[in-house]
Amino acid sequence: MSIIKDKSPVLFFYNDSKKWLMNISKKEELHTHIGVLKHADAIGKEYGSRLMTNKDKYVYLLEPTMYDYIMKIQHGTQIVYPKDLGYIAARAGIQDGQKILEIGTGSGSMTSFVASIVKPRGHVYTFDVDEKFMKIAEKNIRRAGLSKYVTQTNLDLKTSKEIPVTEMDVALIDLGDPWVVLPKVRQMLKGSGCIFAICPTMNQLEKLTIALIENEFTDIESTEHIIRTIAAREGKTRHSFQGIGHTTYLCFARKAFFGRTAKATTKAKATTKAKATTKAKATTKAKATTKAKATKKSTKN
Amino acid sequence: MSIIKDKSPVLFFYNDSKKWLMNISKKEELHTHIGVLKHADAIGKEYGSRLMTNKDKYVYLLEPTMYDYIMKIQHGTQIVYPKDLGYIAARAGIQDGQKILEIGTGSGSMTSFVASIVKPRGHVYTFDVDEKFMKIAEKNIRRAGLSKYVTQTNLDLKTSKEIPVTEMDVALIDLGDPWVVLPKVRQMLKGSGCIFAICPTMNQLEKLTIALIENEFTDIESTEHIIRTIAAREGKTRHSFQGIGHTTYLCFARKAFFGRTAKATTKAKATTKAKATTKAKATTKAKATTKAKATKKSTKN
Amino acid sequence: MSIIKDKSPVLFFYNDSKKWLMNISKKEELHTHIGVLKHADAIGKEYGSRLMTNKDKYVYLLEPTMYDYIMKIQHGTQIVYPKDLGYIAARAGIQDGQKILEIGTGSGSMTSFVASIVKPRGHVYTFDVDEKFMKIAEKNIRRAGLSKYVTQTNLDLKTSKEIPVTEMDVALIDLGDPWVVLPKVRQMLKGSGCIFAICPTMNQLEKLTIALIENEFTDIESTEHIIRTIAAREGKTRHSFQGIGHTTYLCFARKAFFGRTAKATTKAKATTKAKATTKAKATTKAKATTKAKATKKSTKN
Amino acid sequence: MSIIKDKSPVLFFYNDSKKWLMNISKKEELHTHIGVLKHADAIGKEYGSRLMTNKDKYVYLLEPTMYDYIMKIQHGTQIVYPKDLGYIAARAGIQDGQKILEIGTGSGSMTSFVASIVKPRGHVYTFDVDEKFMKIAEKNIRRAGLSKYVTQTNLDLKTSKEIPVTEMDVALIDLGDPWVVLPKVRQMLKGSGCIFAICPTMNQLEKLTIALIENEFTDIESTEHIIRTIAAREGKTRHSFQGIGHTTYLCFARKAFFGRTAKATTKAKATTKAKATTKAKATTKAKATTKAKATKKSTKN
Repeated sequence: MSIIKDKSPVLFFYNDSKKWLMNISKKEELHTHIGVLKHADAIGKEYGSRLMTNKDKYVYLLEPTMYDYIMKIQHGTQIVYPKDLGYIAARAGIQDGQKILEIGTGSGSMTSFVASIVKPRGHVYTFDVDEKFMKIAEKNIRRAGLSKYVTQTNLDLKTSKEIPVTEMDVALIDLGDPWVVLPKVRQMLKGSGCIFAICPTMNQLEKLTIALIENEFTDIESTEHIIRTIAAREGKTRHSFQGIGHTTYLCFARKAFFGRTAKATTKAKATTKAKATTKAKATTKAKATTKAKATKKSTKN
Repeated sequence: MSIIKDKSPVLFFYNDSKKWLMNISKKEELHTHIGVLKHADAIGKEYGSRLMTNKDKYVYLLEPTMYDYIMKIQHGTQIVYPKDLGYIAARAGIQDGQKILEIGTGSGSMTSFVASIVKPRGHVYTFDVDEKFMKIAEKNIRRAGLSKYVTQTNLDLKTSKEIPVTEMDVALIDLGDPWVVLPKVRQMLKGSGCIFAICPTMNQLEKLTIALIENEFTDIESTEHIIRTIAAREGKTRHSFQGIGHTTYLCFARKAFFGRTAKATTKAKATTKAKATTKAKATTKAKATTKAKATKKSTKN
Repeated sequence: MSIIKDKSPVLFFYNDSKKWLMNISKKEELHTHIGVLKHADAIGKEYGSRLMTNKDKYVYLLEPTMYDYIMKIQHGTQIVYPKDLGYIAARAGIQDGQKILEIGTGSGSMTSFVASIVKPRGHVYTFDVDEKFMKIAEKNIRRAGLSKYVTQTNLDLKTSKEIPVTEMDVALIDLGDPWVVLPKVRQMLKGSGCIFAICPTMNQLEKLTIALIENEFTDIESTEHIIRTIAAREGKTRHSFQGIGHTTYLCFARKAFFGRTAKATTKAKATTKAKATTKAKATTKAKATTKAKATKKSTKN
Repeated sequence: MSIIKDKSPVLFFYNDSKKWLMNISKKEELHTHIGVLKHADAIGKEYGSRLMTNKDKYVYLLEPTMYDYIMKIQHGTQIVYPKDLGYIAARAGIQDGQKILEIGTGSGSMTSFVASIVKPRGHVYTFDVDEKFMKIAEKNIRRAGLSKYVTQTNLDLKTSKEIPVTEMDVALIDLGDPWVVLPKVRQMLKGSGCIFAICPTMNQLEKLTIALIENEFTDIESTEHIIRTIAAREGKTRHSFQGIGHTTYLCFARKAFFGRTAKATTKAKATTKAKATTKAKATTKAKATTKAKATKKSTKN
């Protein structure tokens, strides 16, 4: 049985829009619109128990899950929502033991989510250029107890010549211009490795998709995820009146080897504005040189 | 670098609707509508490489992810789709080290997905009554390399008096009548533990929600998840014409202690058809007896 | 060219959430958060022109459409939204010249919308029991200039033995328990006539569908309509963050003659709780008596 | 009572995916997978009655609605679906008596739908450049009995200098490049008149929105409409497994007068690639010249 102690993390839960995540500190009180609670009263109780505020409202003492950390994370930027995070994990097959590359740490919410899945044998390597965010992220990751599984680096992968990690299982990109880092991401990903980019606009999906083809990715998929809440009540079940809007689109792909010769590839990359015919053309070129390429692949990446 | 060998699992990927998952067997061939491939030709190649069929079609040799195993699982029953599995993991905060109870193993796809996340320190305890499905599930779980992290038991938790496991972090229920097992699931869940039920109909959501309140669960949430695919192409980006229909609704909750006296609780349970007022009434009774209950909680479950 | 005069209706439009519908009254002023406008300044301007408030904000002088009347209607009750009204019109094929029965006038918004389409040769017969709403509806219908095409009656069709109208093309039902009036609605509808019921809950859809089968309706269809707004902006096009929630479900059907004998029908109606097998059984009975029924149809309804 | 006669139009309805629309021809038979029916057997029956095929299947004899005509229209092109047509009618407030401009007649389905609403006092003026489609459309419009309310013209409004109609209430545009005709559409629309464009891609929405601002339209709204079907059955109500995909996006706006001087406007139009700042800039210019503009408006359009 899991008993709440001093310093234990607790989600004080009144309802889905009124909830507070904090560590118990035996001399503190929680002051809310629905009344006051003494932290000390929670100590010794089993998680799931409830306390009554001085305004006669019940508040449940829940054991915080990764979901609670993500939803309550201190963010100076747009977070990635659990509905989207869940699909990322399921579509890319993220699991224990994997090495994850993240470009754009942001507030560290996706970092934390992914680290909670790949631990204890996996690791998240996350890169950002904004020192302010990096501090926020560090605090959020520590709070979720995941610092051990995350390496944060202040490095601009768009401009750096460095290849700080290799053979990553999955790459997560949360940048405004994800296509810029694709050639570098390829070098860090293992063969057949997965990529996921957070793309808030359709224009980003479009540009990224073109760049993914040029950079020899396959199984390319753009999706959006709509979550609808249902008010299930006896004899009156219906969707909630409260809707949910757009959060982001997601773009997925896997690293492949189209087997282009080094020359053909360079050419393709140079013509960033190549039309949809790029694929067909590259394919044609590739056919003639299948054998030659096989030997060059490892040098290319 | 990850090189394909004899016996290696490979997803032969042509496109999202034409893909084949199998282990390489050096003397075999893959016969498809888009041509023939020799397994032997894949040996020695890096994952992500491609082969050309005798009909001049390129097929990519991808390293299977958990997603591929789930989508290609041999199922005699309806599977839970990755979009729903992902939300389950994210909302319940499933992570390394957790103990998961699953009632209704089915084809073992949810079992495998969850095991891939909680391993190596966590475990999935899954129960079913249909021996035929149990064999299918066993095979699917083994194929995904996860047998070590799963205990399958042939037991009917609806009728059994046994409490085979306790202190579970999360309970996943995939039964037609999930409300029947709620009292037992409570006994197996830790305080504040999460429950997720797969509910294909609105009627199930409604009945289950009523039962969850009666059985002292909180943070109850019913959702459905819509995934929309976007055809991102230069100058012509739009949603796919191909739509996706309903898969299932999901019902989430967390185990709480309403602090009812044993008597009050029994009464509430007896009146299964109690209206939405049940909660309010129980609350009123509870107030008068807050102290008494605290001592009884541990005996109740 | 359409010039604004004294007494002309004008939609003062600032943006989609800040707009005011009123008749010009030359001595009045419009006071808003974005400043003050004199009605007199609008007189003599062409519809579509704009005025500047004393806070330097532009407000457009739009000619109100039926959409504007509906969105700005004074309602004491939940209105039916244009997205739903539009589908009702399109699915039931509502057009000039039709006779429409409406049960549940509410605030008169659906009444007005439908009248604007069936006029000048068609007519809407609308019934309600709440005199307060009837007055609100009357005012709203008059304001939209449609009183001539609407007959409002204070009559409870659930209990009345009267059949006030017959040979209606379409019946619109906005009641909490639409199934109660089905036998009566049948008598008022022409053969093959359409029915649409506003059903805010899934439970209503379910009960109504069962009753529609029992009351010999065909082409039964339950739908919901989701409108998503897209923020189209150069280089940054995406769905709006602002979501839209549930409004209502809609249930459509057309009056048919299953050709049951009078007796069989009575029996079916008595067993309101008949299972989904009702249809099959009724069909079986019907087969044996096809000829007999034909002669009874006209007497039945 | 409406009785089927020789030549009467009838929708032979088996279910939503098996239905046939035709005129009764007393010597003909309807041959289908579910059996054979003699047209002659329908004569004398009331609409809504049913016939049994020689394979013992019931087929309902429904009176075709505009919906049936649209869904069964002979189309060589993509039709606009009822869910979208309904919103167009409701959002633009289309009603009896209005004059509608349509650019891109296509198969005449939108033409017919709109004509059925604006008749008998309104009219649809529709333009196309493809003679083959114009013939198909003519046939479809005639079949729906609406020829009297529609004028079809073979004219390319993109290039023509002609202004064939003016003071239109609503303009409907179904072209691949709707922005091209905006200046001309303005001249044909009345002040405050509505425009709706069918935009199958996000890129079209984006370009059109920019052009609408440049061409002095307001109340600009881009939407998409999702219809979900619900299988309502006793105790097993859920959304249909069969999904619906993307049909089209819709772009709505109303003609306004921004009051730019002729010069300012010309400049704005010349810079088609002007950024989102166009609006702000135009506004600034406009302020200084408010009075001057008022006198020029009528000459401009």
